[in-house]
Amino acid sequence: MSDLDLSLYLVTDPGLSRGRSYEFMVEEAVKGGVTVVQLREKNLSSRKFYELAKSLMSLLKPMNIPLIINDRLDIALAVDADGLHIGQSDLPYHIARKLLGKDTIIGLSVETIEQAREANRLDVDYIGLSPVFSTNTKRDINRPLGLSGVKEIASFTKHKTVGIGGINNANAKSVIASGAHGVAVVSAIVSHDNPRKAASELKTIIDSAK
Amino acid sequence: MSDLDLSLYLVTDPGLSRGRSYEFMVEEAVKGGVTVVQLREKNLSSRKFYELAKSLMSLLKPMNIPLIINDRLDIALAVDADGLHIGQSDLPYHIARKLLGKDTIIGLSVETIEQAREANRLDVDYIGLSPVFSTNTKRDINRPLGLSGVKEIASFTKHKTVGIGGINNANAKSVIASGAHGVAVVSAIVSHDNPRKAASELKTIIDSAK
Repeated sequence: MSDLDLSLYLVTDPGLSRGRSYEFMVEEAVKGGVTVVQLREKNLSSRKFYELAKSLMSLLKPMNIPLIINDRLDIALAVDADGLHIGQSDLPYHIARKLLGKDTIIGLSVETIEQAREANRLDVDYIGLSPVFSTNTKRDINRPLGLSGVKEIASFTKHKTVGIGGINNANAKSVIASGAHGVAVVSAIVSHDNPRKAASELKTIIDSAK
Repeated sequence: MSDLDLSLYLVTDPGLSRGRSYEFMVEEAVKGGVTVVQLREKNLSSRKFYELAKSLMSLLKPMNIPLIINDRLDIALAVDADGLHIGQSDLPYHIARKLLGKDTIIGLSVETIEQAREANRLDVDYIGLSPVFSTNTKRDINRPLGLSGVKEIASFTKHKTVGIGGINNANAKSVIASGAHGVAVVSAIVSHDNPRKAASELKTIIDSAK
């Protein structure tokens, strides 16, 4: 997917969405300017995860926005999702690529400079730089890469990059300026009173920083 | 898999295995007479689940014992497992069959007579009757089917059947006598001081009841 636009990458989180539905959050966020959506779900049964993913595919396909499933390759296959995002403790990349084929987007989280170097040996479609800043959204992660880490990785990676972790209106510009192709956010959109407006403001900042 | 032998079906459970490894439990149980193994895992990362499944495949393949993965179709695909077991809250059967193809074993848990009737419309390879008796191993399940439920389902199902839930040395014979092709156990083997001996005793009871 050479035309993959990582500019503003939404990662879902029902726990931070203040009771609003996935479909509402995703639709509002896309209308505001989100360019790609990742469905990240760790608590649903496989059946409910599948049904939710199918529902989001129906919503996003006509809007021409790719849906990327976090971790669960079976769900990605079951709904013919646009992509799969894997972390360092998910299925190995070569297995995911073998099972999904060459036309499916596969993104890989890297949490260190070393992992970013290793990713240069893989034909992933993008790497997620995680976390850029410290964050309360996801606690099981390494020391932040910081803007210096983003810059260093941007200097040698052959992949598109998206920064994630603690990114908001106040620092999104600096992440893009450090060389990331896009920023991924969770709470900056899903916890906002007005997710469409939050997305729109972020998108304006990102576009003007490019 | 018309030659699938459901006689003594082991379902893994690390929480009940008293610190002994999956590989130890499975090897001992198969040496004692287990005819099929299901890897059921709800807490591991996808990477660790994959590595464990791969390890069990290496162990079981030379012993000619099928490995069936519970719920996670991606893990089943990743290790080319013999089969997948799905419950009523896992991926829909028709999706699983489409993704796995006709040569992979697919088992389906049924918790009511009605679900067993519905399963007659599916080309599953077996149905799990769950639970036969009340059990402490798995709490998120329906009222026990009882031996009368096993008998009723056996009278109309077109599928092979395996009873699960609260089955042990004392009642295994009655489950087979009620028409089940096999019995599935968790704690009766994995919590036993000597899992090989536990499996061997169960196998003798099952074989003599047939």
